[in-house]
Amino acid sequence: MTTAKISVNVKEQAILAQKASKELGMLSTQDKNDALYWIAKAIDEQVEDILKANEQDLENGRQNDFDAAYMDRLSLTEERVKEFAEGLRQVAQLEDPSGEVVSEWTLDNGLNVQTVRVPLGVIGMIYEARPNVTADATGLALKSGNAIVLKGGSTAIHSNRAIVKVIKEALVSTKISPDAVQFIDSTDRSATQQLFTMKEHIDVLIPRGGGKLIQAVVNNATVPVLETGVGNCHIYLDKDADVDKAISIFINAKTDRPAVCNAAETLIVHEEFMERHQEQLISALKSSKIGVYGDDAAVKLIPGAMPANEEHWENEFLSLDVAVKIVKDADDAIAHIDRYGTKHSEAIVSENEDTAARFKGLVDAAAVYHNASTRFTDGSALGFGAEIGISTQKLHARGPMGLPALTTIKYVMSGNGQIR
Amino acid sequence: MTTAKISVNVKEQAILAQKASKELGMLSTQDKNDALYWIAKAIDEQVEDILKANEQDLENGRQNDFDAAYMDRLSLTEERVKEFAEGLRQVAQLEDPSGEVVSEWTLDNGLNVQTVRVPLGVIGMIYEARPNVTADATGLALKSGNAIVLKGGSTAIHSNRAIVKVIKEALVSTKISPDAVQFIDSTDRSATQQLFTMKEHIDVLIPRGGGKLIQAVVNNATVPVLETGVGNCHIYLDKDADVDKAISIFINAKTDRPAVCNAAETLIVHEEFMERHQEQLISALKSSKIGVYGDDAAVKLIPGAMPANEEHWENEFLSLDVAVKIVKDADDAIAHIDRYGTKHSEAIVSENEDTAARFKGLVDAAAVYHNASTRFTDGSALGFGAEIGISTQKLHARGPMGLPALTTIKYVMSGNGQIR
Repeated sequence: MTTAKISVNVKEQAILAQKASKELGMLSTQDKNDALYWIAKAIDEQVEDILKANEQDLENGRQNDFDAAYMDRLSLTEERVKEFAEGLRQVAQLEDPSGEVVSEWTLDNGLNVQTVRVPLGVIGMIYEARPNVTADATGLALKSGNAIVLKGGSTAIHSNRAIVKVIKEALVSTKISPDAVQFIDSTDRSATQQLFTMKEHIDVLIPRGGGKLIQAVVNNATVPVLETGVGNCHIYLDKDADVDKAISIFINAKTDRPAVCNAAETLIVHEEFMERHQEQLISALKSSKIGVYGDDAAVKLIPGAMPANEEHWENEFLSLDVAVKIVKDADDAIAHIDRYGTKHSEAIVSENEDTAARFKGLVDAAAVYHNASTRFTDGSALGFGAEIGISTQKLHARGPMGLPALTTIKYVMSGNGQIR
Repeated sequence: MTTAKISVNVKEQAILAQKASKELGMLSTQDKNDALYWIAKAIDEQVEDILKANEQDLENGRQNDFDAAYMDRLSLTEERVKEFAEGLRQVAQLEDPSGEVVSEWTLDNGLNVQTVRVPLGVIGMIYEARPNVTADATGLALKSGNAIVLKGGSTAIHSNRAIVKVIKEALVSTKISPDAVQFIDSTDRSATQQLFTMKEHIDVLIPRGGGKLIQAVVNNATVPVLETGVGNCHIYLDKDADVDKAISIFINAKTDRPAVCNAAETLIVHEEFMERHQEQLISALKSSKIGVYGDDAAVKLIPGAMPANEEHWENEFLSLDVAVKIVKDADDAIAHIDRYGTKHSEAIVSENEDTAARFKGLVDAAAVYHNASTRFTDGSALGFGAEIGISTQKLHARGPMGLPALTTIKYVMSGNGQIR
């Protein structure tokens, strides 16, 4: 396939999606839900085909010596595929944000003004290994009235293609046009890059995956981006912290699911807390098998701790390792978070309300916690149902994003001849 | 001044602004209002200095043969400067969006969750000739708790410098740090370009000015942008339109203030409306001195009409000229708007509710009108008070933007040891 050929396809597909999005945006909630249930049924019925396609990706992965974690993300089972279907049924049960009248007032001249929630239009989804994103993102897009252009990772292309085939064939029997779901069936990077600048036809790009992918999209796209993801989260144990809360919160945030974005990556400890509770903290680190990279003071105090370098402070470990910094006061902790944080989730453990208020006010992050684990920055934990991702940007949506993040508003003015 | 020198300054200034934004974000509404009143007083007292500086810009403009409209935008008078001060006092009276608890709930485990409105942080304002933006944008930024980095047009640099000097000197006597207002005192374009990528220190860029400036920012910035402005607005006169409403709405939208973004630029007429009301329409165009560029059908029917080309359909006239297109039905009108509209304000005049509903549903714009002039897409007309601009993008804010557009939300979690 020549580049020119791909070029034409990506644009054509985006235009098809855009056309389909217009009528999709006018459909009733019932029509959209019916379509989601229908897709779910089709997925349940065609598990075998999807698993067969997935086997091709897995075989390719084995030949290329992908590591175990990567293979796990890539791998589908009957149970996992049935979860896609179940996920679509859950999305069908979520409230439809589209059509909601957010505010309404009437001017003195009688002009009625409404702000109405409407779909964004066309979502461009750029993602990596996980094939579940294909089904999940499609469900969220369609429920909120949006068309979707899917560009998955090349290592999952057989799985993604099979899932999209099931979805599009199912849509034929619904009120949603199959054109509303477009799959960029290419492993060529230039296809992805074309999506970056297709401002006329794509309303938002959502990158899902590692930090590198997300930054490539943010730095090169002229289409607006919903930035999700990287969480270099800190837990600060203040001098006025309750030691049991402190240790339980840190151990939970670090070890409950170390590979997720709301897990703790750095532990910041007030020197007085360290002085008083050194033994208890060290014993907790040890019994949870946590590897420590520390600043000079931490290396001195914590047996087995290795010296931390910039890389350790800057990046997620996504493992049972942690970076430990000892500070003189809360402002030191805030300054460290300011420098290294990724504006995701940050926590203070303290019984001092003033210190906690200062921390919550000054720390610039999607979620700030006082005396609780950062693990609650999560759509399902907060009761949103399925989430599109966790936004670490400030514009449009911040923190866990539910369906409303896939909508915008429109001023709808109704008059009887008003002029100015 | 060497480029290297400027390079250091722009970054240093952005960092100063960011530092100042932290404490500014924690100030009370009263403290921020006091600062605005104090600046207003200083401006009132130093009108002479500002006018003297403005005279330098005007002299430069005369030497460079700027046209009358440009000179008008550049020109300050005692009255106009006093309006800056009055504008700041009005902003002081607006509701402070910052600190508002947007939603609050408690999880089953007792964790309290609040979403709280907080300032974005640092606003980067990139604008052209109008020196009033210097005072207006500063007032809106400070009131909402944001620091601001100002980069005005080189033709207004003396005026802008003088206004900023008054503002910063006034801030010394307030709780807001003068560092919260940074003026990039350079006519070098590279200074502007540096702002485009200063993602770590600037939270949003707002370009104000012509389409070229806005597109340069949108296409080159990695800092998120609030896109304001260009309005290629259409008025569609349906076959079921009331002729008096139709003509009055079009004439108002076209002629009330032809140079503004919510003015009509294209008139789309249903062929049956044209057939029935040709005479009345032509007479209205004539008596309002409107110049017509039309499609083939319009050129045939409207005396004196010139043939329209792509430029006419695509761009704002910002004058008493209009492009006229004759269509067979509402869907034709919608398709034309889809192709040439800038997603600002679009109107249908019709007594048929179904046609109007279809138009309002399918037309993708910040504001859609049924039987009213597009001139109401305006913060003050809608009762918002001062506006930051009119957003033609879909993410974050759409349509007239008030102070809340300069804020984001933060999840504030308060617990007593909750873990997952």
